[in-house]
Amino acid sequence: MTVKKLAAALVIAAIYAPVALFAAEPAKAPDLAKQIADVTASSGTLKIAIDTLWTIVAGMLVFWMNAGFALVESGFCRSKNTVNILAKNFIVFAISTMSFWVIGWGLMFGKGNDWIGQQGLWLLGGADNSPATGDAYKGVYDSMNWTGVPLNAKFFFQLVFAGTAATIVSGAVAERIKFHSFIIFSFVLVAVLYPITGHWIWGGGWLGVANFRDFAGSTVVHSVGGWAALAGVIVLGPRLGKYTPDGKVKPILGHNMSSAALGTLILWLGWFGFNPGSFMAVGDGSGVAHVLLATNIAAATGALGATAAAWLLLKKPDLGMILNGTLAGLVAITAPCAFVTLGSSALIGAVAGVLVVLSVIFFDKIKIDDPVGATSVHLVCGIFGTLAAGLFYDYDIAKNIAGLTGDVVDPAKWSKGAQIMVQLKGIGAVGGFTLVASLVLWFVLKLLGGIRVAREEEIMGLDVGEHGNEAYADFQEVNR
Amino acid sequence: MTVKKLAAALVIAAIYAPVALFAAEPAKAPDLAKQIADVTASSGTLKIAIDTLWTIVAGMLVFWMNAGFALVESGFCRSKNTVNILAKNFIVFAISTMSFWVIGWGLMFGKGNDWIGQQGLWLLGGADNSPATGDAYKGVYDSMNWTGVPLNAKFFFQLVFAGTAATIVSGAVAERIKFHSFIIFSFVLVAVLYPITGHWIWGGGWLGVANFRDFAGSTVVHSVGGWAALAGVIVLGPRLGKYTPDGKVKPILGHNMSSAALGTLILWLGWFGFNPGSFMAVGDGSGVAHVLLATNIAAATGALGATAAAWLLLKKPDLGMILNGTLAGLVAITAPCAFVTLGSSALIGAVAGVLVVLSVIFFDKIKIDDPVGATSVHLVCGIFGTLAAGLFYDYDIAKNIAGLTGDVVDPAKWSKGAQIMVQLKGIGAVGGFTLVASLVLWFVLKLLGGIRVAREEEIMGLDVGEHGNEAYADFQEVNR
Amino acid sequence: MTVKKLAAALVIAAIYAPVALFAAEPAKAPDLAKQIADVTASSGTLKIAIDTLWTIVAGMLVFWMNAGFALVESGFCRSKNTVNILAKNFIVFAISTMSFWVIGWGLMFGKGNDWIGQQGLWLLGGADNSPATGDAYKGVYDSMNWTGVPLNAKFFFQLVFAGTAATIVSGAVAERIKFHSFIIFSFVLVAVLYPITGHWIWGGGWLGVANFRDFAGSTVVHSVGGWAALAGVIVLGPRLGKYTPDGKVKPILGHNMSSAALGTLILWLGWFGFNPGSFMAVGDGSGVAHVLLATNIAAATGALGATAAAWLLLKKPDLGMILNGTLAGLVAITAPCAFVTLGSSALIGAVAGVLVVLSVIFFDKIKIDDPVGATSVHLVCGIFGTLAAGLFYDYDIAKNIAGLTGDVVDPAKWSKGAQIMVQLKGIGAVGGFTLVASLVLWFVLKLLGGIRVAREEEIMGLDVGEHGNEAYADFQEVNR
Repeated sequence: MTVKKLAAALVIAAIYAPVALFAAEPAKAPDLAKQIADVTASSGTLKIAIDTLWTIVAGMLVFWMNAGFALVESGFCRSKNTVNILAKNFIVFAISTMSFWVIGWGLMFGKGNDWIGQQGLWLLGGADNSPATGDAYKGVYDSMNWTGVPLNAKFFFQLVFAGTAATIVSGAVAERIKFHSFIIFSFVLVAVLYPITGHWIWGGGWLGVANFRDFAGSTVVHSVGGWAALAGVIVLGPRLGKYTPDGKVKPILGHNMSSAALGTLILWLGWFGFNPGSFMAVGDGSGVAHVLLATNIAAATGALGATAAAWLLLKKPDLGMILNGTLAGLVAITAPCAFVTLGSSALIGAVAGVLVVLSVIFFDKIKIDDPVGATSVHLVCGIFGTLAAGLFYDYDIAKNIAGLTGDVVDPAKWSKGAQIMVQLKGIGAVGGFTLVASLVLWFVLKLLGGIRVAREEEIMGLDVGEHGNEAYADFQEVNR
Repeated sequence: MTVKKLAAALVIAAIYAPVALFAAEPAKAPDLAKQIADVTASSGTLKIAIDTLWTIVAGMLVFWMNAGFALVESGFCRSKNTVNILAKNFIVFAISTMSFWVIGWGLMFGKGNDWIGQQGLWLLGGADNSPATGDAYKGVYDSMNWTGVPLNAKFFFQLVFAGTAATIVSGAVAERIKFHSFIIFSFVLVAVLYPITGHWIWGGGWLGVANFRDFAGSTVVHSVGGWAALAGVIVLGPRLGKYTPDGKVKPILGHNMSSAALGTLILWLGWFGFNPGSFMAVGDGSGVAHVLLATNIAAATGALGATAAAWLLLKKPDLGMILNGTLAGLVAITAPCAFVTLGSSALIGAVAGVLVVLSVIFFDKIKIDDPVGATSVHLVCGIFGTLAAGLFYDYDIAKNIAGLTGDVVDPAKWSKGAQIMVQLKGIGAVGGFTLVASLVLWFVLKLLGGIRVAREEEIMGLDVGEHGNEAYADFQEVNR
Repeated sequence: MTVKKLAAALVIAAIYAPVALFAAEPAKAPDLAKQIADVTASSGTLKIAIDTLWTIVAGMLVFWMNAGFALVESGFCRSKNTVNILAKNFIVFAISTMSFWVIGWGLMFGKGNDWIGQQGLWLLGGADNSPATGDAYKGVYDSMNWTGVPLNAKFFFQLVFAGTAATIVSGAVAERIKFHSFIIFSFVLVAVLYPITGHWIWGGGWLGVANFRDFAGSTVVHSVGGWAALAGVIVLGPRLGKYTPDGKVKPILGHNMSSAALGTLILWLGWFGFNPGSFMAVGDGSGVAHVLLATNIAAATGALGATAAAWLLLKKPDLGMILNGTLAGLVAITAPCAFVTLGSSALIGAVAGVLVVLSVIFFDKIKIDDPVGATSVHLVCGIFGTLAAGLFYDYDIAKNIAGLTGDVVDPAKWSKGAQIMVQLKGIGAVGGFTLVASLVLWFVLKLLGGIRVAREEEIMGLDVGEHGNEAYADFQEVNR
């Protein structure tokens, strides 16, 4: 130690003497600054860690909905088409993973214009400095700069959403569609159609700017899936035997209500990731807890509403209606969950539960043959839920739970009527685009070799025809 | 401003001057204080966030137990009653959501006397400043002021517990109860009965004050469900065909052991939320990890104990017994998990596994016809587990894991005998109240139109009779 | 320190003195030090909390894989052996819990030599001061001192891994093994064999020291399970009727493809705990998110690769192949997920998907009768994945995601060829040891009373023979 260093040490010692008298371990002032910087940095990292943890756990819950859809759809259909439905549900998420990674994410969340993303299109390849947020974010996916998690976590969460939209189609077109037609449609849906309307709302596009509110995707995910499904049903036509020659509806029973019920409980659980996870952050926990409870309450009242409606209209509490009522409540609360009170959530769920029963009966009547009721659940209740986000819009909840700021949380500057109008505009625009684009896509696929299996294959079942498999080889089955 | 304060300020300023010299950006003393306040606030928010995250994720795991109960109960029953059991399991959670929200929560956790909550009764509507804890909490739900999470998160976690109690009843009364009778019973159970005894133990009532120990609800949830189930079985009587005219037991086989096994694995998983989640906080992780491991070990030894007992008594390792043995271990460890060592956990699970085999045989003999063994699993092992929390009470674990303080962790001041006595008192009081109240309720429902379906409907199956549905329309079934 | 700087400091001090007077509570230096110490301690506890939370949640997801294996294995087998398979899957995890607790953990992670752990062998009983990490850790399980979570959390996470290895065996030996033989084999596998090779790689042994890379267990878990399974299949021989007298392969169809598909989705979900959970920490979230996404991408390309291969080779997209292709991708990415890019992950999954189709056909040809394809999935793709960790080793990913340091992340000092060589060495050593030891163990069990059920029992089904149960008592079945 040189004399110079010794002198410096003595100076420092003299300066810090008073601190040494008071602190247990003599704390040095510059050390304090350093320690504060350290603990502040640690705290920042912990915040990123907890937000990432929640985002990926919520994403896993949404991924788990694939199992729910697989079971609900196969359970509501006949045993001879089970393998085909399961295979479709499997492959659709594999396909979605690739198409959303390759191009969909970029079109949805890349910097662009009001209509579409134009930068960072391919393979998550754009500039990005996540988990930086707000102005500190320097990258091309700035429509997602509000959440402080790594890019891969953002992508995973959005991927499972995109996969959900595609899976919705699967049930509606079941029991008659060619396997490869469905694969191609799903690829295009997730690669292009879903990201376009998604960009309008969540990617920085015109509807988001216009204050259209869809917290977790009643429109972005469910209605879009529902419109694409409706288009498929229209182009495909009803299943053989669904309508008698004189035009009467002949019910085609599902083959496994245990599967359908388990699938619905899986979806209910998955929605606890879908809605509360859409914060992609935990914050102080209050937002997440509110949305979670709103989601659960709407599911419960959806089940109860459908039970009551079925009991009244069909004379007995049909299990299929109870299950679809639960899903109806869940779809309906998806858009409004962060903007409405718990009381409104109960009402929204109950209305959706009744609505889905009426809708299933209605679609059956007009010969829209959707074997699992996907159109009633995801399209009809998706529309209703989006509208409900306007009808039941609560300024305090919007401010404190959704974290909205500015004019839209001031009743004097932004009326409920205005909110309802923009909701209607969004419902119409997204619906018009997705229905037309889906119809065109289905028709093109129909022209290019057909999308419906041969009559003999439909009667025999798609399991043997498309896959060379049997679902239940050891059981005596009744071929219907 | 006094001269004294000015002088103090100068001293402080002098002390911090060097910091300004050494820090990259000259750190100013008041800035440091501000920075410390900021990071301390952030750290507090992070603690709330992580505790909320764990509470809701654990709550989701418990919610997921609904699927487990649905599958175990339907799997252990006949195919002709599958839709009915699934519908009951669905609707019971929907009903529980409403009844616990509307009134149950308030009766259980609202400020009140030794016997019942009296404030903040309706719709979570009482004063509350959660996530404030301890003395900082100013509200009417102060029996829950030990956990620093938002009120909605507290409610969600407690709601899924209440739902579990109601679901336990479902299996025991299966295959003969009217759908609407079960709905009404469940509503009252969750709205009133469950909250009353819950208040005694977890809501600030007399048993909690008397140091009754039930960490996660062997008594609060499982025994209560078990007593209510037993009352139902007594009032309903056995299923047709369960006993031959000369009084012999005729086994009625379950229709789907795949469902039953999957359901049990779901329950095992769900219990990882049930028990470790009951901290409603993560702390330093050691308590959660201990309870998790104790839970898993008891499940394992429960399975092994039942396997051994079945192999010895029934000559073969019956799968139904293995499954119920696992559940027996889980129910039994629910009360003591935070008060006993891992070694004791292994023993508790093993004893419960043997006990459940004996109990199932015993109840069959005395003509208590419980199709799924719910009474043996939840009531018998719930009682045993609650007692085990006294028998195996470990002062160190109680202090370090459960966080108990004061006399009860001092062997000189609080004997094991005293603990066992209070456990017995609680078992008796809760059991007496719930059995009597449930019997009364079932009898009232019986008088008001009957609770059992007609003989023809029972033979045909409740699926067609109550719901107009078939569970497995494409399969050739044997009607038993 | 210049005079100028000193003067500046004094000026700053003078300026800020009044601030100290106005601050709500005048901040005193020793208080600040105390406050910083407090918040730093809180922050440290929060880090432990979040890492523990992630470790146990990930462990729960891996535990959940037990349900996946139970359903995949039983679904791919005949209905007459369902109860037996479910019972095996249940009991194997119960047994693993005991054997890994009693001795396995200590042999694997206890301080020892290159070959085996020698301290803290019994019942987690060694000295331990977790969650202390690095040099601060003073205990006998120092091969796990890199993660700052409680010992019970470490154990739980490793236990569910050990259970997975044992479960893999279950499917391969299904439909003909005696229940008690399987129990004994599983006990020894988890108590001794698995921990030995595990010690070589993760417990401080020679392969870990030699830079063998197996992030989450393509070799440690999957290949080990696969080798043990292969040994069992060899000793048992093929099922009756699998090969015609003239040596042709006769396919034996699975009885429940709904179970198999649900099981595979459960495993896919469980793998989101298996791989990303292997950090046993969250860090800044980026590692976890990368590994999660790599895992999902490989599963997707595995499914797609197998679909394509099956479509080409078998003319139709067989669902069994799609499911095994997904699992193949997951097994293959398990070793390399933290060392390779997302692009490489896609390639690894796709190759594994094709490989598993070829492997299933190959094993069928050489009369290795594995009813569920466990050998093809876990052994073949486990080997491929371990090799892929060398072939696709990316220095940047290894540094930034896996957190490797030193020579191995410097291409000038550690070549890809060197990495590939050590991977091959590890594959060979672990495979040689496990195959030989398993063969010996199976043979010993065969000598001590036989491991295969009687011919009549095999024809009648093991459900009745071993358990006295029927899986589906209400259904008309075809006995094959």
